[in-house]
Amino acid sequence: MNIFLIGSGNIATQLGSIFKKKGHKIVFVYSPTLSHAARLGKKLKCKYGNDSKSIVNHPADIYLIAVKDDAIKAVVNKMPALKDQLVVHVSGATDIDVLKKKFKNCGALWQVQTIILLKNTKPIPVPVVIEASNKEAEKKLKQLATAISSKVYSLDSKQRRVLHLGAVFVNNFPNHLYTIAQSLLQKHKLPYEIFHPLILTTAQNGILNPALAQTGPAKRNDKVTMNAHKKLLRKGNQLAIYKALSKSITELY
Amino acid sequence: MNIFLIGSGNIATQLGSIFKKKGHKIVFVYSPTLSHAARLGKKLKCKYGNDSKSIVNHPADIYLIAVKDDAIKAVVNKMPALKDQLVVHVSGATDIDVLKKKFKNCGALWQVQTIILLKNTKPIPVPVVIEASNKEAEKKLKQLATAISSKVYSLDSKQRRVLHLGAVFVNNFPNHLYTIAQSLLQKHKLPYEIFHPLILTTAQNGILNPALAQTGPAKRNDKVTMNAHKKLLRKGNQLAIYKALSKSITELY
Repeated sequence: MNIFLIGSGNIATQLGSIFKKKGHKIVFVYSPTLSHAARLGKKLKCKYGNDSKSIVNHPADIYLIAVKDDAIKAVVNKMPALKDQLVVHVSGATDIDVLKKKFKNCGALWQVQTIILLKNTKPIPVPVVIEASNKEAEKKLKQLATAISSKVYSLDSKQRRVLHLGAVFVNNFPNHLYTIAQSLLQKHKLPYEIFHPLILTTAQNGILNPALAQTGPAKRNDKVTMNAHKKLLRKGNQLAIYKALSKSITELY
Repeated sequence: MNIFLIGSGNIATQLGSIFKKKGHKIVFVYSPTLSHAARLGKKLKCKYGNDSKSIVNHPADIYLIAVKDDAIKAVVNKMPALKDQLVVHVSGATDIDVLKKKFKNCGALWQVQTIILLKNTKPIPVPVVIEASNKEAEKKLKQLATAISSKVYSLDSKQRRVLHLGAVFVNNFPNHLYTIAQSLLQKHKLPYEIFHPLILTTAQNGILNPALAQTGPAKRNDKVTMNAHKKLLRKGNQLAIYKALSKSITELY
């Protein structure tokens, strides 16, 4: 399939590279910033530009909108209405309604994965969630999705939003808790490496059965330990997080 | 070394088994509940009982107090004062002061790991933190610790408490967030397995550089997405957790 790529950031780069590798053709990379469009266009060995009219001049089967969530609307506004082509965004948090007004065949393709893969991080097969405006579009989108994952789930916008919220709870929030722990240890000149095994085991347990794996002072409602912990935390955000999570754990068990 | 084991729960079982395997001798298992003492005593093929006088009758080099944090004091009260033997607790949250009054040679040996290893969970080498009341005791304790880990850290009670608090942030709290995500998905009939790769990658990124790995609506201060998320959450604890963590992330970046 011929793919017109809109966007030049992490996800656009990643998806463009995979689709090209899997035999699809990237016909054009569009970005409002010419240098960004050029960087990705050269990488994918295709045409590129920052003129939104290029969308009309470079016909494609699929228009892939791989931009930040809050930029999707602006991109849609710049695009001509399309009847035959498939227009797809890659956002977990955005309904496909934003596309439906202008494009007969549209959908979403969301990878349930963090866009950041730090060096040395082992890549793990990534589930992909899709949604399409009609059966024909879904068939095409599924074909595209199977190029990047063996685990493709068809969900509606509401389900995808729930999943996106869940992803905040299993990615954004644990990652911030790691950040707090790291800064706490740094402050007391303790090596963060001491937590590496614990972080990995916690994730492995959490995949299997988090409710069964819960331990700690909040679960035991051990007020002596929790009070000692609170004294060690800076007032403000860290303390508020400690209290909110401990309260929730204590009340659940 | 001859070890007298006080306690019969997860940690007592795990440590008793490892020390026996590594060539130390478990001379006795004491637990206030006879059936518990019997179960572990039979497993370790040693004497057992629920009479606290057995501590006097079964001399050992090391008395290992492997009971719940809030039961340590009661155990110490039951024990005779000891001059030559080493008395060790295995708590991350408890100062060794609780032992110093009664025992000349005392210390703590804390494994930086969750005590729960669910089936199929790969065991990962576990760092061990020790603290001792004097050099002689430290030498003995280090010898014991190296039997179970190649990573032994000598820290004081304050440092161990900071580490224990950190462990709450990298284990107890992320695990609770997984639990919330799982219940959220169950409620909307979505499969939790969809998050397995994300959970693992998040942990791998979090080990390397959590600050660099942070993404999500709170980091972007994307209020539209955060408001949509809040609507999906039950009022109460889940919402309080979402708000506290999002606020902390937004303010950090």
